[in-house]
Amino acid sequence: MKELTTDHISQQFNNELEALRQHFLTMGGVVENQVQDAVQALLDSNGVLAEEVKNQDATVNQLDGLIDEECTRILAKRQPAASDLRMILSISKAVSELERIGDEAKKIANLTLNLVNEGESPRGYVEINRIGEMVSRMVHDALDAYARLDIDMAIKVAKQDRNVDQEYNTAMRSLVTYMMEDPRSISRVINVIWVLRSLERIGDHARHTCQHLIFMIKGVDVRHVNVNDLTPDYKAK
Amino acid sequence: MKELTTDHISQQFNNELEALRQHFLTMGGVVENQVQDAVQALLDSNGVLAEEVKNQDATVNQLDGLIDEECTRILAKRQPAASDLRMILSISKAVSELERIGDEAKKIANLTLNLVNEGESPRGYVEINRIGEMVSRMVHDALDAYARLDIDMAIKVAKQDRNVDQEYNTAMRSLVTYMMEDPRSISRVINVIWVLRSLERIGDHARHTCQHLIFMIKGVDVRHVNVNDLTPDYKAK
Repeated sequence: MKELTTDHISQQFNNELEALRQHFLTMGGVVENQVQDAVQALLDSNGVLAEEVKNQDATVNQLDGLIDEECTRILAKRQPAASDLRMILSISKAVSELERIGDEAKKIANLTLNLVNEGESPRGYVEINRIGEMVSRMVHDALDAYARLDIDMAIKVAKQDRNVDQEYNTAMRSLVTYMMEDPRSISRVINVIWVLRSLERIGDHARHTCQHLIFMIKGVDVRHVNVNDLTPDYKAK
Repeated sequence: MKELTTDHISQQFNNELEALRQHFLTMGGVVENQVQDAVQALLDSNGVLAEEVKNQDATVNQLDGLIDEECTRILAKRQPAASDLRMILSISKAVSELERIGDEAKKIANLTLNLVNEGESPRGYVEINRIGEMVSRMVHDALDAYARLDIDMAIKVAKQDRNVDQEYNTAMRSLVTYMMEDPRSISRVINVIWVLRSLERIGDHARHTCQHLIFMIKGVDVRHVNVNDLTPDYKAK
């Protein structure tokens, strides 16, 4: 009888962890869509889609609060140890990254509405398209890595952030040069610059999300290690 | 004898919590100095001071890792409940805010080095001085609120962020106008714009830090509540 009860409690605990994981992935799906839609709305000057991105913010905040409550409740009630404890702490941190990815998507939506009002920028859309695709893919793969607990994918995503930073710096130099040549366009180009800045931040948050996952699986804190210095056993060199 | 042991364990636990709190405040002191020094280095075009700000980054990252390890260890070993559990979760989140404040200070230091090389910007220093003072004060007061568990101060700091955002928007409009009038200055003014952006982010992180404190004291998640809508009992209206 005692064993049955223990099994029962352990099954409940597993269900709670699984629910937590599912809510995390659901929230991830919402912000992933927000990023894609925000970029698309900007490329198409689509104010209606931009408003939809902004409206998703309430859902993201709700899920953020729910997941945080679940983490606190499980910690208090189940007092988990080792890998379960690490999973909960990892999700508790990663969820803040997702929430900020959603915030950046909302900023892009607001900038889109500015550009719909002021008129399109004469430059920067090619760069937004390219960098937007890169960071959307990073967010998608980061969530995939969480869903499958795939540490190789997590490392791959974290490394990808360096390419985003390079593309971002190149784009920024070319837009500053353009503004010098055509000062009348500055107030529109500056909106595009803010969009690129937000996309670059989204790349940072996707990288942080993956670093939280690596910590969860390996128990190694890699946030302050250059991901390019990680050896195959995921220790710092 | 049993009571003595319990007292002993409970005293050890208190010591661990106190050590955690002290490490958090130490880390806070380091990033507070980083912010002040970064702004001063920029105002004085002081490359040496800017390098010092960058060098502090290693200390901040070390403390960040240490505090995270302490949180995990205490949760695993002591299985705290209620207010102790909330304190640990609150610090675990707030420490990420401090780490990012340090990152923004480092960015300001890098921009200072750009400006030392390229020559000073013709505009923006008055604004950096004013907004720099506002956010330095916010970081200082946020840590003070943590040190004294002062919820009124935490709310005051969180509300202050709205003033920072207003000053930031005014400064940005005036700098965009200036760039249109003097396009040759764009590449220098844009560095100042990035500095203002970093200061604005520091204000955001100080606000988040305070919101984590309010959660810790009250057990109410106020991150997605407009701080201006908080009633005196700190519930959302």
